[in-house]
Amino acid sequence: MNYEFLKKLIISAETKIVMLIMDGLGGLPIEPGGKTELEAAHTPNLDALAARSALGFSSPAGPGIAVGSGPGHLAIFGFDPIEHEIGRGALEALGVGIDLGPDDIAARGNFCKVDENGVLVDRRAGRLSTPEAIKLARMLNTIQIDGVQIHVEPVKEHRFAFVIRGKELGAALQDTDPLKDGVAPKAAAALDKPSEKTADLVNRYIEKARQLLVDEEQANMILLRGFDRLPVLPQYGDLFKLRAASIAVNGMYKGVSRLVGMQVLPVEGLKIEDEFTTLGQYWDQFDFFYIHIKQTDTHGEDGDFYRKVQVIEHVDTQIPRILALKPDVILVTGDHSSPAILKSHSWHPVPALLYGKYVREDNIAEFGERACARGSLGIMPAKDFLPLLLANAGRIAKYGA
Amino acid sequence: MNYEFLKKLIISAETKIVMLIMDGLGGLPIEPGGKTELEAAHTPNLDALAARSALGFSSPAGPGIAVGSGPGHLAIFGFDPIEHEIGRGALEALGVGIDLGPDDIAARGNFCKVDENGVLVDRRAGRLSTPEAIKLARMLNTIQIDGVQIHVEPVKEHRFAFVIRGKELGAALQDTDPLKDGVAPKAAAALDKPSEKTADLVNRYIEKARQLLVDEEQANMILLRGFDRLPVLPQYGDLFKLRAASIAVNGMYKGVSRLVGMQVLPVEGLKIEDEFTTLGQYWDQFDFFYIHIKQTDTHGEDGDFYRKVQVIEHVDTQIPRILALKPDVILVTGDHSSPAILKSHSWHPVPALLYGKYVREDNIAEFGERACARGSLGIMPAKDFLPLLLANAGRIAKYGA
Repeated sequence: MNYEFLKKLIISAETKIVMLIMDGLGGLPIEPGGKTELEAAHTPNLDALAARSALGFSSPAGPGIAVGSGPGHLAIFGFDPIEHEIGRGALEALGVGIDLGPDDIAARGNFCKVDENGVLVDRRAGRLSTPEAIKLARMLNTIQIDGVQIHVEPVKEHRFAFVIRGKELGAALQDTDPLKDGVAPKAAAALDKPSEKTADLVNRYIEKARQLLVDEEQANMILLRGFDRLPVLPQYGDLFKLRAASIAVNGMYKGVSRLVGMQVLPVEGLKIEDEFTTLGQYWDQFDFFYIHIKQTDTHGEDGDFYRKVQVIEHVDTQIPRILALKPDVILVTGDHSSPAILKSHSWHPVPALLYGKYVREDNIAEFGERACARGSLGIMPAKDFLPLLLANAGRIAKYGA
Repeated sequence: MNYEFLKKLIISAETKIVMLIMDGLGGLPIEPGGKTELEAAHTPNLDALAARSALGFSSPAGPGIAVGSGPGHLAIFGFDPIEHEIGRGALEALGVGIDLGPDDIAARGNFCKVDENGVLVDRRAGRLSTPEAIKLARMLNTIQIDGVQIHVEPVKEHRFAFVIRGKELGAALQDTDPLKDGVAPKAAAALDKPSEKTADLVNRYIEKARQLLVDEEQANMILLRGFDRLPVLPQYGDLFKLRAASIAVNGMYKGVSRLVGMQVLPVEGLKIEDEFTTLGQYWDQFDFFYIHIKQTDTHGEDGDFYRKVQVIEHVDTQIPRILALKPDVILVTGDHSSPAILKSHSWHPVPALLYGKYVREDNIAEFGERACARGSLGIMPAKDFLPLLLANAGRIAKYGA
């Protein structure tokens, strides 16, 4: 998207847009000629919606590129995922609600176990319990380092987010995590001149952490990896005049939506229907809603074809709750494909359904990969969907005379 | 289009290309599940041609962007419409046949009415009659300003084109038209240093115009807006070795075709069939013919679904006259969509039909939005059609060995 160009054309409207993202939605058949997960799922509501929609595919980062959740989401949010790279450290910090500033440096942390010689015996400290990690994090947060603020925030089990805030700090640091047991953690070496000060501060912090944790049974050391800063992205409010909200249960998706200026809404409960309850509760307060469903991807990555099918069927039962709110425009797609037979994210374009009063209907009464291949949208770069959503919502003025 | 790349591959051939543009061709159904204007039209000739053609869509400026006629035409003429922006002033001047040079500055003018305090009471001077405007324009063209030539040319009713020709003049001027009544016209303020001289000349001109028109009853002042120069575009003759001609009734389309080096052919009469008569008359003298049909857009913008359908049916009756000339390649599409239900230009891709001896036929015997959605061309950027026309006309050599 050419932001400067698009921004000049944005107009306000009293319209509402829903973007429903089933993580890893796209799939593959188990056997040649068989059905994909989405095709196998019994989805009467999505099929009925498809009949009144335009179908096609969303391509997150171009042919052959399988993306992670970060770039996959930036793309469907309208940004070039290759141009705007988000580091994993920054995403993790955003995910746990740390109000990361543009100068802050973030990393992903692990509590780990080392032996008396400082050699790693368990990179994940036996996946120690979250309450235990919270206790250790509280200990780490008593550490003082002159001239900077360093904060850790527990994520889940052995994982935590690490943030260092200070002046004139470079972010080009090597991971301390060697990614295998049987060796000692590495020092946080600077990869450029401006990061030497940061490396020194981080290494002093790690040494103090080691001393603090030395008597702990399960986790007596920390590992850091993925040092980076937040990319600076245009904000939905400023760029699109959208009051945008995000509905997600998992931290990373909250994080990436916050990055583009969405307000993260609270979800009471962890069930899929709880997210749609939030949608209804906040309907009047926002113009744009992003809803994230995690479990499609989880089961895809686990290689569990049938549980992925069940999640899609479960989401299908919630579609009438969206329609009851009478949104002007709906996009249903995923951030990438996660075919169960691959047990991983894949490069396959993701089925996409675009509904709206001014959408040219394809009259194809089915939502699935083969149905989408017959749709009029073709294979569209994921980042191009957002201008299309805005246009269908009456939010883009004519260009030129 | 990468001109430098393409230009090196261009070869001559004894072939002829027809580009038939029905302005605002693309449409939408009146009711969900219904037919679009093009689908509703009875078009036996276009349907028969479609059966021997490749179908798809032309996307003028990318997903979600509704374009005006200027950018829509630049795109289908092969140029990036965002990179090459044409101002309204320059288009208006071209439209009335002013031979605008690269240094000339053009603006759109209005005859208007001000009260005794110089406050606008009618920005359009009651849409004064064209003969009256011609009389006033003749008066204005007696004004002398040292060192520059200033010319106005009536367009229609209260509108005129304004051109200033001189040396070392900037074109960054603020509109004098405040776009509302009840306030005084603004001065032509310079928006940069090189335009200060221009602003001074224009303001002196406006003062002389005010004095000249002071006793006129209906229109006693002028307003100017949209000051700009012509963008410099590659010329069809030089770039593509094409002797290109344009057949259009309305000024703007003559103007934009002249901008890329087409010769504007005279059309005797204002009826659709008159344009096809011109095509036959000049057939031997050119390689490339652009034919513009205005009324599809007019009725689309008026919200008149059935009259738009009728115009399409009328154009369909003329298709045999094109075929009788045995062109090598034919493109039928529009510069943008103008669905009657939207009463405006829209962002929807425009149905496109590509006919030629070496075109892969889709064997879809229908020209309409859903038929084009099944076509092999997919959704193509409008600017990519021209290389395809040239290739099908045997006018592009192989790249590389």
